[in-house]
Amino acid sequence: MLIVQKFGGSSVADAGRIRNVAGIIAESYLEGHEMVVVLSAQGDTTDDLLEKAAELNEAPSKRELDMLLATGEQQSIALMAMCLEAMGLPVVSLTGWQAGIRTNADYSAARINRINTERLHRELDKKRIVLVAGFQGVNKFDDYTTLGRGGSDTTAVALAAALHADKCQIFTDVEGVYTADPRKVPGAKKLDEITYDEMLELASMGAQVLMNRSVQLAKRYGVELEVLSSLVRAPGTKVKEVSRNMEEMKITGIAKDANVARVTVMQVADRPGSAFRVLNAVARAGINVDMIIQANGRDETNDMSFVVAEADAEAACKVLQDRQTAIGFRDISVDKDIAKVSVVGAGMMSSVGIASLVFEALNDEHVNIQMINTSEVKISCVIDAASADRAVAAIHRKFFEA
Amino acid sequence: MLIVQKFGGSSVADAGRIRNVAGIIAESYLEGHEMVVVLSAQGDTTDDLLEKAAELNEAPSKRELDMLLATGEQQSIALMAMCLEAMGLPVVSLTGWQAGIRTNADYSAARINRINTERLHRELDKKRIVLVAGFQGVNKFDDYTTLGRGGSDTTAVALAAALHADKCQIFTDVEGVYTADPRKVPGAKKLDEITYDEMLELASMGAQVLMNRSVQLAKRYGVELEVLSSLVRAPGTKVKEVSRNMEEMKITGIAKDANVARVTVMQVADRPGSAFRVLNAVARAGINVDMIIQANGRDETNDMSFVVAEADAEAACKVLQDRQTAIGFRDISVDKDIAKVSVVGAGMMSSVGIASLVFEALNDEHVNIQMINTSEVKISCVIDAASADRAVAAIHRKFFEA
Repeated sequence: MLIVQKFGGSSVADAGRIRNVAGIIAESYLEGHEMVVVLSAQGDTTDDLLEKAAELNEAPSKRELDMLLATGEQQSIALMAMCLEAMGLPVVSLTGWQAGIRTNADYSAARINRINTERLHRELDKKRIVLVAGFQGVNKFDDYTTLGRGGSDTTAVALAAALHADKCQIFTDVEGVYTADPRKVPGAKKLDEITYDEMLELASMGAQVLMNRSVQLAKRYGVELEVLSSLVRAPGTKVKEVSRNMEEMKITGIAKDANVARVTVMQVADRPGSAFRVLNAVARAGINVDMIIQANGRDETNDMSFVVAEADAEAACKVLQDRQTAIGFRDISVDKDIAKVSVVGAGMMSSVGIASLVFEALNDEHVNIQMINTSEVKISCVIDAASADRAVAAIHRKFFEA
Repeated sequence: MLIVQKFGGSSVADAGRIRNVAGIIAESYLEGHEMVVVLSAQGDTTDDLLEKAAELNEAPSKRELDMLLATGEQQSIALMAMCLEAMGLPVVSLTGWQAGIRTNADYSAARINRINTERLHRELDKKRIVLVAGFQGVNKFDDYTTLGRGGSDTTAVALAAALHADKCQIFTDVEGVYTADPRKVPGAKKLDEITYDEMLELASMGAQVLMNRSVQLAKRYGVELEVLSSLVRAPGTKVKEVSRNMEEMKITGIAKDANVARVTVMQVADRPGSAFRVLNAVARAGINVDMIIQANGRDETNDMSFVVAEADAEAACKVLQDRQTAIGFRDISVDKDIAKVSVVGAGMMSSVGIASLVFEALNDEHVNIQMINTSEVKISCVIDAASADRAVAAIHRKFFEA
């Protein structure tokens, strides 16, 4: 079997952790599998490098930033190779370039264009464990690029797709995907399986297990993922097209995203195109907008609210203020003390009553719902931030602990 | 003018030092020169990486070691690029691979085979300052290699040769090449010029300004070097084929090398080939031998002494002990409490009396000479280590302070 494994920065943070991971890799290799292993930079390496850069230049070019950051993963693969060598195993480490990972020229947020698998196959044919630096590639200028946040997951999935791997295992510091954040909800249950779509909703809702991009890529190429722990040897959660649970369980998980803000544009002129002009201005600034509400005002104006990532809130306000006359509105306010609580489940679409159960749970806890958004696979509610953990626990009890 | 500059690890050790070096580079660039700048890894980076490696594997493969170490220089060039960007200058950083530096496959001690200058020229044509990671290249397998100790000097000289640079400036933490170690001999004078051959003798004698390999390369390709300080803005020492000083000054400098040991093989059978067998055994172990003395014994045997680098002394003994019967000798002893003091000067060959001045200086100080070796450009004396600094000062007074 050809297995792609990926280990994140905390899994290789020091010599002890590296040895632990080497043990996991060795176990699979010695079972007779072909192994391709993707590693992230050790622990805080990336942050340390960013700090060094900031000392010299507050806004360095992304090209040079990628040149700097790419060294972190290169160090990880070399150190892991040495550890596996010490165990007497055949191993070779490859940077993104050597592994044939070609990206577009979008420094710091590059997309993988293609993977030239020639060298990978050559090394696998020699029965070597192949370690690949995650998060990086090279563009058509032969310059180093990095793939942006969660890039190592993307590297792993892309390699699994290109090599037609039988398995793609993403090792993290949690044991899998849970019905809710297990640190906050003691009754949270680990899921055996979950569909790509459910995982996508959970990831974008702040579940922070897998980056959306890697899940999208996995869905597109039909790469079956397994999320599991590098510290506890136990089966994790499989992410695939169709999950076994689909029929029996309508709800997969409950996620909280506290890094959101509500922007309210007050007294927007009630004439055709006003809403479009507001949203278009924000979208053209590259800001994603989620959940839009228009409330009819008493006069000829409407108040309009939408949700953005907290980090984008100021930029969204600025963009609108700059166009205040053109758009036509009175004032803008921002509320960062909100959270988005989402209930996700591919089974939701064929069922009525899920929403009412959610509302019931929140009502029991006297939590006020500010905004609601529903899709075929999720229901999201915006509530005040202070109630969010209590709300998640209450909804979780309703669905999973009855 | 096309100028190649090289800055060592201590010159880029922290943000302040990087800014200082950026100032030097900027000054040359703004004078209208084309700039190629070679950088070493910051301060202790290489040692820190070696320590991390040692935690995981006491004898890692050289391939993986090179993979690890190559990241140090890559970080330096990225950080320097950011600093120059902050000054508003056009700059691009290139790893050894990107700079077209192709080496043989001798990991950790690779030799540069050729430099494909295509990209370098392309970047220079765009009027960019080109920063190149020193100490590294890639071999025919597209694997990272490093050039061994002092490798960044070699990178600089090789680039200067390949690009037909007008100047190759090696910036260090000393102001140039001195007639003796200025920390030990207060009267030591900075030389304006020195020949390649003299520099080679001084370097191998422990003057520690430039590695021999880079000087050999400079001599071979006629690259004129200048050694100068990154901290003090002053002319340094030029290293070239023919020096102005040659006629007027017979002696260029005096060097001490304390990292040597004398190996004495006692009672070697006095028959044809004995000396050859001793030296051949040592040479085949890859150990360089310097200064050989055979003393006629009273019986049918000779004592034989030779000098090796202190780090090689144990290995030399072992190799000989393993062949004791085949070679035929009684015992071996090692003396590490010795030093080699050398007087270097291209003008020496056409002059008599240099040696006698050296002997006179040592005699004045009651320093006993254990071994002597002379060549056309140098006289070396082995003396006891404790007297070495005193001996250097005495010889220096005789030649330079009269």
